Amino acid sequence: MIASMLALWELILLMLSNLFSRLAGAKLLPPPPPPQPSTAVAGSSLACDASYCLSWRVAVETNNAQGWRTVPARCVLYIESYMLGGQYDRDVETAVECIVGYADGLVVGDDGMDAWVLDVDDTCLSNLLYYQGKQFGGAPFDPTAFKSWARRGICPAIPQVLILYKKLLERGYKVFLLTGRDQETLGATTTSNLILQGFIGHERLFMRNRTYRGQGAVAFKSTIRKQLVAEGYRIRGNVGDQWSDLQGDCVGDRIFKIPNPMYFVP
Amino acid sequence: MIASMLALWELILLMLSNLFSRLAGAKLLPPPPPPQPSTAVAGSSLACDASYCLSWRVAVETNNAQGWRTVPARCVLYIESYMLGGQYDRDVETAVECIVGYADGLVVGDDGMDAWVLDVDDTCLSNLLYYQGKQFGGAPFDPTAFKSWARRGICPAIPQVLILYKKLLERGYKVFLLTGRDQETLGATTTSNLILQGFIGHERLFMRNRTYRGQGAVAFKSTIRKQLVAEGYRIRGNVGDQWSDLQGDCVGDRIFKIPNPMYFVP
Repeated sequence: MIASMLALWELILLMLSNLFSRLAGAKLLPPPPPPQPSTAVAGSSLACDASYCLSWRVAVETNNAQGWRTVPARCVLYIESYMLGGQYDRDVETAVECIVGYADGLVVGDDGMDAWVLDVDDTCLSNLLYYQGKQFGGAPFDPTAFKSWARRGICPAIPQVLILYKKLLERGYKVFLLTGRDQETLGATTTSNLILQGFIGHERLFMRNRTYRGQGAVAFKSTIRKQLVAEGYRIRGNVGDQWSDLQGDCVGDRIFKIPNPMYFVP
Repeated sequence: MIASMLALWELILLMLSNLFSRLAGAKLLPPPPPPQPSTAVAGSSLACDASYCLSWRVAVETNNAQGWRTVPARCVLYIESYMLGGQYDRDVETAVECIVGYADGLVVGDDGMDAWVLDVDDTCLSNLLYYQGKQFGGAPFDPTAFKSWARRGICPAIPQVLILYKKLLERGYKVFLLTGRDQETLGATTTSNLILQGFIGHERLFMRNRTYRGQGAVAFKSTIRKQLVAEGYRIRGNVGDQWSDLQGDCVGDRIFKIPNPMYFVP
């Protein structure tokens, strides 16, 4: 009785959230063929998946789950619903509320050395439009296709993070953007993409130049942060959608995780 | 239209999950009076809460939200449903699957110095029965009442963590239990509670003795872990339900967060 109640509410949740996600996503891409949960077995399986995939997503966000290469096949529909159905936006909003609450509580020195470090991809700029064509992370990472996408320079701002960015600047913090994107091939488009989307007034944009090619994200980003600290900056906060943005040396006084269940950068 | 769809499915989710949680929880405590979502306004508010509270819970699990003293009033019902309705159990299970996957992939040395550190409260032993009487964290922390509860020595094992514990011992790891509980007043009952629940065969149980009274969890637990490392142990993993279990010095090669949205230990 209890098990069937659980299956029922999870099934209703998944079906309605999926319907909603299709309504919300209709402007972006033609909807994929609808799922066919026409039998009790399929319903029970979907219900089981909804619970499993929520647990999986929390494991990703807490960094319990590491080194995964694709979203589990049974969770692709769930992640689509999550990303397009409103909960992802709500989660980003809540993360930003935590950041603003913390940043507002600090005294910003008048020496101009209080700094924040923000990641770019899926922190400032959204790649959701790209990942819609890659099963929301259900398909393996395709470096060539991703580079083509990034070269177009049309990644939209994540609106809540743009608001945060402007608040940090208004409060007198220096903002540094730090991305693993390749400087040589993506430097110009990334710079213009950021400006077009309103990310104006940051102190510097650090990209991966030849020196750092082939280095992991933790090593590369640690080196840059150490450089900032050596210059005298106090990194008061560090914001990224990957744990590799937030680990290593000189991570900052506080780290904040922006949700991203679509890919894992080691 | 989209907004009302969203409100509808979240409302259905909350009502059914709440009903389920009451069914599941009926054996433990008499059910509180049912909510009265009889108007559109109440329904809309409940729907908004379900989305908000899921975001809040993820912010807690990622450590974006810190220093909170109680579960937000609007999330008490949600956390009750989460803890009793099956999703908490699923989340613990998924965390444990991540830990076992990692632990199984390591080569355990034959010198007996590969170690794991596990927290006790709401990692090995569950305080859920106690927190059922404290609005699942909606009521402020009550140190006297909690001590009375802990003195009874009847905390049940968290089953998935007990399985993990036994697997770690079988694989040849040394397991150290590390808790902020007071040695003098809770030493005997904690030891017997752990044994009665099957946590047998750990190398040592570290509790807070007089030396560490008044110290924060991070400082106290760091000191003990440093001591283990000084003794030559390699801390391969560290498991806790609080981020303060997992931060500071010598945290271990990997840290794992067990879900707990009911309280925050700084």
